[in-house]
Amino acid sequence: MSRFFSNKFSGLAPYVPGEQPRGAEYIKLNTNESPFPPSPGAVAAGAKALERLMLYPDPECGALCAAAAETFGVRPEQVICTNGSDEVLSWAFAAFCDGDRPAVFPDVTYGFYPVFAREQGVPYREVPLKDDLTVDIDAFMEAKGTLVIANPNAPTGIALPRDVIEALLRADPARMVVVDEAYVDFGGESVVKLIERYDNLLVTQTFSKSRSMAGARLGLGFAAEPVIRDLNTLRFSVNPYNVNSVTLAAGIGALADPAYTAANCRTVIENRAFAAAELIKLGFELTDSRANFVFARYPGVDGETLYRELKAKGILVRHFARPERISDYLRITVGTRAQMEALLRALAEIINA
Amino acid sequence: MSRFFSNKFSGLAPYVPGEQPRGAEYIKLNTNESPFPPSPGAVAAGAKALERLMLYPDPECGALCAAAAETFGVRPEQVICTNGSDEVLSWAFAAFCDGDRPAVFPDVTYGFYPVFAREQGVPYREVPLKDDLTVDIDAFMEAKGTLVIANPNAPTGIALPRDVIEALLRADPARMVVVDEAYVDFGGESVVKLIERYDNLLVTQTFSKSRSMAGARLGLGFAAEPVIRDLNTLRFSVNPYNVNSVTLAAGIGALADPAYTAANCRTVIENRAFAAAELIKLGFELTDSRANFVFARYPGVDGETLYRELKAKGILVRHFARPERISDYLRITVGTRAQMEALLRALAEIINA
Repeated sequence: MSRFFSNKFSGLAPYVPGEQPRGAEYIKLNTNESPFPPSPGAVAAGAKALERLMLYPDPECGALCAAAAETFGVRPEQVICTNGSDEVLSWAFAAFCDGDRPAVFPDVTYGFYPVFAREQGVPYREVPLKDDLTVDIDAFMEAKGTLVIANPNAPTGIALPRDVIEALLRADPARMVVVDEAYVDFGGESVVKLIERYDNLLVTQTFSKSRSMAGARLGLGFAAEPVIRDLNTLRFSVNPYNVNSVTLAAGIGALADPAYTAANCRTVIENRAFAAAELIKLGFELTDSRANFVFARYPGVDGETLYRELKAKGILVRHFARPERISDYLRITVGTRAQMEALLRALAEIINA
Repeated sequence: MSRFFSNKFSGLAPYVPGEQPRGAEYIKLNTNESPFPPSPGAVAAGAKALERLMLYPDPECGALCAAAAETFGVRPEQVICTNGSDEVLSWAFAAFCDGDRPAVFPDVTYGFYPVFAREQGVPYREVPLKDDLTVDIDAFMEAKGTLVIANPNAPTGIALPRDVIEALLRADPARMVVVDEAYVDFGGESVVKLIERYDNLLVTQTFSKSRSMAGARLGLGFAAEPVIRDLNTLRFSVNPYNVNSVTLAAGIGALADPAYTAANCRTVIENRAFAAAELIKLGFELTDSRANFVFARYPGVDGETLYRELKAKGILVRHFARPERISDYLRITVGTRAQMEALLRALAEIINA
């Protein structure tokens, strides 16, 4: 810390992203990236945009909003484009939470939510998952504040059906509900279309997972027009050129090839089913993941040990030391069939050693 | 405004970026973009990175920090990479200003500084430029707080020599000085190397101007290691993947071709000299700009009229209605020789009409 750093940040606890090894050769199953390259259309559109890089990006992200609106069956005015879905989530914490309205989210969920709350200076309350690691819907039905729900949840992968989200929306129309659909394309039920009927709904999606564009930093928010306008007010007050030109173009390219994305998602779902079945045969216990990862533990061997021994064998997975109730689990990204086979071999060696 | 938007933003006044017309054909001299495409090396490196877009960017931006360190003759630990220099500037307001230390900047400068201060919830004080539109150095020498100085200043283009910045650094070593060198490559004196001697200096640069990469959103900060560590603490608390992979790669490509950048800067400087001399012949009054724009007024015709009539003739320039003392000026980006000739013809027609 320099002698100039403001005291107000003395308690800051930065989010720790998954390891991004450079140089070393790992099978990388730790940050839920896609094992497949971005669509050829995304690459081609991005390459073309590089030639015009001397111009600022369109601050309205007009063409991408229009393309996303068409893909999702909504209107462009109901869409905002951001530098990763992290950005729209962070702005949602700022815009729709305050002293009277804490952010309310599960105690086990995307690790960035408490970081956003602290960053934006808003209070938050964590609702414990139930013993089976599912979201405690009864508690959320009654909760006061702004609900933030990852669906499917991370790192459990467990999904809520659409009608449960709709019940949360109806339970208190004065309450904003933010649904983070980062992993929805791998077997969840999207509620994007519900923005037509509920003005207290904000849905976020990302291009980092199903669309193989984690490196591009692109997220979308969907909501009723007044809610999108609020988020744009923040955007124009903070960083109007938040999404770069190449990412805007590549995003449009990706949306233009839904068959490519759908085929990759089907493969991931198949590989998840394969990996899950084999892990169960080995004696692992798994949640019912609808995401591009599995969440698994092996009775009698702690998660930290499994993580370390896999790393020694050249396979990176994600382990969370906290909260303690998930510290025996590994979050393992679903990659190619060959990657899953390598994982299963390594785990078999570890537990049979 | 939706019924959910937090009251705390009721007074928010978003920055208004320069017009980015889509579709219409304008000669665009309003946002200080380069008239030249990015370097072939930047385009090629970016295109290669597109193929690997399924992976998250390196959150450390290690390769770009190393390349920038070599280019600027500092160490990688003295560099931070951000999503445009706006981002590092915004974080500097957060990190190094608070109730006891307001941000202090000229009343006529980059319009985003007050926006950053409000965004980060820190107080600020504006020091009036002198009557000749130069920075009031005596006032800054004595000012308490964190100084933020664009050098060259915008929209005047007037530059401070290196020894004046050094005097500000020495005047109070307990005071942080942020020097925004967005336009330094067009005739200013950079103080990046002074970070070796002054731990109270943060210098920011951008790839948006001399390196023809406004669309890529890339900025750099240079400072002593503890200061860079503070900024990285904020970065990892807010958006660890702030710079996308294509921009990182293109940035390294741009730094690898300094001759291309230098040649473009020489051309802009020549075109600026040409345009300035011709504007003076027409009767305009100009500041001594060392940036990639001129700042000019025509006695007897107000700035708003000149702006509107140029726009009607297909030429976009920037006009600032406030503060009033600069409302008769136009900020005109220096483009190609042909663009400058078109501008001069149009202005001659307007003032002779």
